[in-house]
Amino acid sequence: MKALYYDKGLSYVEDYKLPELGPNESLIKVLISSICNTDKEVLRGYRPDFKGILGHEFVGEVVESNNKNLIGKRVVGEINENCGKCLYCITGRPTHCENRKVVGMNNHDGAFAEYMKMRTDLLHLVPEEVPTELAVFTEPLAAALEILDQVHIKPSTSVAILGDGRLSYMIAQVVSLTGADLTVIGRHEDKLKSFAPFAKTTAKTYETFEVVIDATGSPTGLIDAQKIVRKKGIIVIKSTYAGTIDINMSDFVVNEISLIGSRCGPFEPALQLLRRGLINFPEIDLYDLKDYEKAFNSRAFKAGFRVTY
Amino acid sequence: MKALYYDKGLSYVEDYKLPELGPNESLIKVLISSICNTDKEVLRGYRPDFKGILGHEFVGEVVESNNKNLIGKRVVGEINENCGKCLYCITGRPTHCENRKVVGMNNHDGAFAEYMKMRTDLLHLVPEEVPTELAVFTEPLAAALEILDQVHIKPSTSVAILGDGRLSYMIAQVVSLTGADLTVIGRHEDKLKSFAPFAKTTAKTYETFEVVIDATGSPTGLIDAQKIVRKKGIIVIKSTYAGTIDINMSDFVVNEISLIGSRCGPFEPALQLLRRGLINFPEIDLYDLKDYEKAFNSRAFKAGFRVTY
Repeated sequence: MKALYYDKGLSYVEDYKLPELGPNESLIKVLISSICNTDKEVLRGYRPDFKGILGHEFVGEVVESNNKNLIGKRVVGEINENCGKCLYCITGRPTHCENRKVVGMNNHDGAFAEYMKMRTDLLHLVPEEVPTELAVFTEPLAAALEILDQVHIKPSTSVAILGDGRLSYMIAQVVSLTGADLTVIGRHEDKLKSFAPFAKTTAKTYETFEVVIDATGSPTGLIDAQKIVRKKGIIVIKSTYAGTIDINMSDFVVNEISLIGSRCGPFEPALQLLRRGLINFPEIDLYDLKDYEKAFNSRAFKAGFRVTY
Repeated sequence: MKALYYDKGLSYVEDYKLPELGPNESLIKVLISSICNTDKEVLRGYRPDFKGILGHEFVGEVVESNNKNLIGKRVVGEINENCGKCLYCITGRPTHCENRKVVGMNNHDGAFAEYMKMRTDLLHLVPEEVPTELAVFTEPLAAALEILDQVHIKPSTSVAILGDGRLSYMIAQVVSLTGADLTVIGRHEDKLKSFAPFAKTTAKTYETFEVVIDATGSPTGLIDAQKIVRKKGIIVIKSTYAGTIDINMSDFVVNEISLIGSRCGPFEPALQLLRRGLINFPEIDLYDLKDYEKAFNSRAFKAGFRVTY
C-alpha cells in the first residue's frame, strides 16, 4: 500500500505491507488524515527512535473488525494505545499509561497511508452529520477540551489565551462555549480577526485574568502569562518546546498561582460539539500522499491528505 | 516601650512610642511572639524598604478595643491588613489584597515589642484550652492548612513532603489528620525521627506520589518533586527563595502536572485543631526582647520572646 514512511527522514512508498490484525483490532481504510505540529516536530528529530508511518489525526472507514457493527462505518481513533493494567490505566488516566504505544509516534504505525490498524476499543464512531473534512479535527479538538476537563471555567470566569495560532483557535472556540469572558492575545492582526466571532482580541493587555492559557508554543508564553494572571489564578500550559525555562517560583508561592500542564483530551465530547455544529474551522488543505512536501509546507490553517485508492 | 526596631539592621530600643489606635483597632499587650524564617530573611535584606518593628507571630492580651468583649482576652492576629475594596478583597482573597499592609513586614509595626495595635476584625480569640506557648504557632499552622484549602487531599491520596524542617513538620501534622498515606523525605536522620508518630520517613524514595509538597526552602525541591510526582499529579510549593529556577515545562505539559503555590492560610481551623490537642510541637525557646541575638541564633524548633513588663 501507499504510505509516508519515516526513518530519520520522510519518504513516500508504494509497497508498504498491509497491517495484520491482532484479536481485538480493526483494519481501517484511511479517508483523510491531517498533519499536526507534532508530526513536523518528528521531522525535526523529536522522536529519533521512531521508525514507521507517521500521522495520528485521521478519519477512516472500518474494513475489518472484531466488532462487526463497525464495518463500513466512519471512525476516528484515540492516539494512546494503553495497557489497561498499570497504575495510570486502573486509576482513570489511560492517556498516561506507562506502557503506552502512540499512533504514528511510538511503536504504532500511523495514518499517513492507505490502511492502518487500531485497537477496536480506541475507535469512536463519527456521527453522520459530521463531514469527514471536519471530523479530522476531532483529536486536536479533544486536546482543547482537556482544559475544560482539568479546570472549572465558569460563565463568570475571565480567561485569556496567549497565541493566535491553530491551537489557540480550537481552545478559544471551546472556551467560548462556556460563556466565559474571553480575550485572545496575539501578534498577528490578520489571524486575530478570525477569533472575532467568539472572543475579544488584542495585541496587548493591561487587564488581569483568572485563567490564562498559554498556547504560544514558546517559552515566553509562561513569562507573559505570569504577568497577567490574577493572584490565586490559574495558568494552563498547552505549549511544548525543547529545553528548560527560567521562572521565578517565589512569585508562584507568594501569589498562590496554579500552573497546569494539559495534553490529550476526551473524544466523545469533541464529536458531539462537531455534530451540533458548534465548532467550525477553516477548510482543510488536502493533498495526495505523494505530494507530502507540499502538504507539510502548506500555510493553510490545517493541511492533510485525501487518500485515493 | 521596649521593642526590636528594624532599619536595615535590628536594634533593641526601650523608648519606642506606644501605638495610637485608629477607630476599629485594638491595643494588644504582647505575651509571646515568635521568630519566623521570614523575619530572618528580612534581616538578610528581603524587605529593604521596611522600617519598624518586626514580628508577625504572636499571642497577646487585648488592652483597649472598639470591641469591648475582647478586652482582657488572649488573641492571635492575621498578618494581612486588607483594604476590603479591591478585586481580591471582594472576591474572597483578602490575603492577596492589592493594598495590603503586612504586620511586621510592610507598613505595619509588628509583635517584637511590649504593645502592638491590630485592626480588630483581624483578631481571633485563643480558646482557653490552648496554652499561650502553643497558640503562638497559630499563624504558621494556618499556613500549613492553606494546602488543604487548595488541594483536596483525600484519605486515599498518597502524599510526599520534601524537607524535614519546621515547615515540613507542621504540614506533615495537618496532612496526616486526613488519613492520607504520608511520606516525609529528608536528609537529617535525627529530624526525621520526630515525624515517626504520624508519617513514614525516608532519605530517598523510588515510589511516586499523587501529591508532592515542597517544603525544602530550596530550588532543588521542585526538581526533586518533578521526579516523584505521578502523571496528572500535583506539586505544592511552600518554599520561597530568591532568584529564578530552570525547569522543564514540556514535562509538565506531557505529564499534565499541576503546580500550586501556597502561602497564608485560615486561622480558625488552626485554633480548633490546637484546642482539640490534635497538633503538637516541641517546646518553644523563649528569650527576653533584649536578648534578641540569642533568640535569632537559637537552634530550637521555634524560638521567640516572652515579653516582661
